[in-house]
Amino acid sequence: MRFASYLNALGEPAVGQVRGDMVAPLADVSAIDATTLPGLPQAATSGDLLPLDSLTLLPVVSAPAKVFCVGLNYDAHITETKRSDSEYPVLFPKYASSLIGHDRPIVLPPESAFVDYEAELAVVIGKAGRRIAASEAMAHVFGYTPANDITMRDYQYKTHQWMQGKAWDDSTPLGPVLVTADEVDVHDLDMTLLLNGEVMQKTNTSKLIFDIPTLIATISEFTALTPGDVILTGTPGGVGYRRDPQVRLQDGDTVEVSISGLGTLRNHVSA
Amino acid sequence: MRFASYLNALGEPAVGQVRGDMVAPLADVSAIDATTLPGLPQAATSGDLLPLDSLTLLPVVSAPAKVFCVGLNYDAHITETKRSDSEYPVLFPKYASSLIGHDRPIVLPPESAFVDYEAELAVVIGKAGRRIAASEAMAHVFGYTPANDITMRDYQYKTHQWMQGKAWDDSTPLGPVLVTADEVDVHDLDMTLLLNGEVMQKTNTSKLIFDIPTLIATISEFTALTPGDVILTGTPGGVGYRRDPQVRLQDGDTVEVSISGLGTLRNHVSA
Repeated sequence: MRFASYLNALGEPAVGQVRGDMVAPLADVSAIDATTLPGLPQAATSGDLLPLDSLTLLPVVSAPAKVFCVGLNYDAHITETKRSDSEYPVLFPKYASSLIGHDRPIVLPPESAFVDYEAELAVVIGKAGRRIAASEAMAHVFGYTPANDITMRDYQYKTHQWMQGKAWDDSTPLGPVLVTADEVDVHDLDMTLLLNGEVMQKTNTSKLIFDIPTLIATISEFTALTPGDVILTGTPGGVGYRRDPQVRLQDGDTVEVSISGLGTLRNHVSA
Repeated sequence: MRFASYLNALGEPAVGQVRGDMVAPLADVSAIDATTLPGLPQAATSGDLLPLDSLTLLPVVSAPAKVFCVGLNYDAHITETKRSDSEYPVLFPKYASSLIGHDRPIVLPPESAFVDYEAELAVVIGKAGRRIAASEAMAHVFGYTPANDITMRDYQYKTHQWMQGKAWDDSTPLGPVLVTADEVDVHDLDMTLLLNGEVMQKTNTSKLIFDIPTLIATISEFTALTPGDVILTGTPGGVGYRRDPQVRLQDGDTVEVSISGLGTLRNHVSA
């Protein structure tokens, strides 16, 4: 199943079940969050079908308590950053306030001189847990969606800790829709990032160094996961900062993150 | 004014105004959070006064959206870590779920072989804002409280990013009570940490490298602050990991963080 968070005709948050190119509004659900998420597959629909393309989409989850990001989780990205493998995932945070929907503008902050893209597979947690064993972890996944881990590179490297380069408000596209875990073979998905139609990143999720069960086990060892929490699983090679010449996102650019079976997350860049 | 978050006789969360050793329950407030915090000074009290010592205290704020920590913000701690000053504060996250109250046990996680203390002054935000100028920042502060930035050192250094050593659930004492900003000269407070009665850390907040207006301006540049958000402002020299011999928190230890004008945050350590 697929779910979209969007603004209805009154401009209010709403949730619908996606059926092909159409969306069936859910009767009693206005946000995908810790409370509503477990019941989504059983939620009743009501009213007319709406064309998905006509809707203003929101980030697929609303107000997640925790948004985890994983760094250096594909060899090609580790190589380009001249760092080395670690035996533990590199973790850093974003906030619920960092997230934006499909087709919303990526606004270049006036303070940053280097805004970069990062295509990533995002995992949305469906079932709470702490100290989840890797062998049980997939039962805690609700679904997946593309993400673009927009990064202010100059801020990222202001110190050895990255959060001020990663957790900018209204920076990080998540969507277009939330696809339940049963619909894909999550460790064999093609992922590409196009910048103005040109391929900048291309990989397959089989190349994840730390797979999804490992990430869930690692994170839930120190903090509880709750429904709606998000894990951005890391970006492959090809980020703008590591290219020669470097590539910065510019006013008017279009960035598209496509993951097979999950769809295409497209956003324009705005000064 | 001083406020305490505690469990009432029914075991339910409650908030009271602290008057000397007694607490006057607030009539219509059960948690100090983004909604209730701005109105606390005007909130009506009702019912009998309760002895502060008799109450089970909760972290002074409930469910903050964002808990920021500052690293390397006193010279004596920078020196002992053999790092160097930076021109930008070192920032990393905790979560609302990291926090515990005064007198609640610091439980040693079975996974960590090195749990450490860090005395810190915590700032609680009272007024929302983004891109707050340093000159306006103090108007966004509600008050202050002691904190103990409990750190799993072995986890902190698993990679170059620290969050998995800092954001353990139910690890980080915050309290005992929330003191409004008008009660103290926040950049001239003595702070000490006692471990089983022995002084392990001792400083004055005048030694903060990045002062509170600078921290608020820096953080709010990239993400909005909301009432109830917490900033842990960094620890001075003397942490257990940098001592010779090293000192680890052990089952049965008592740790006390005292800040002049704000009180003493005391917690026992439990295996």
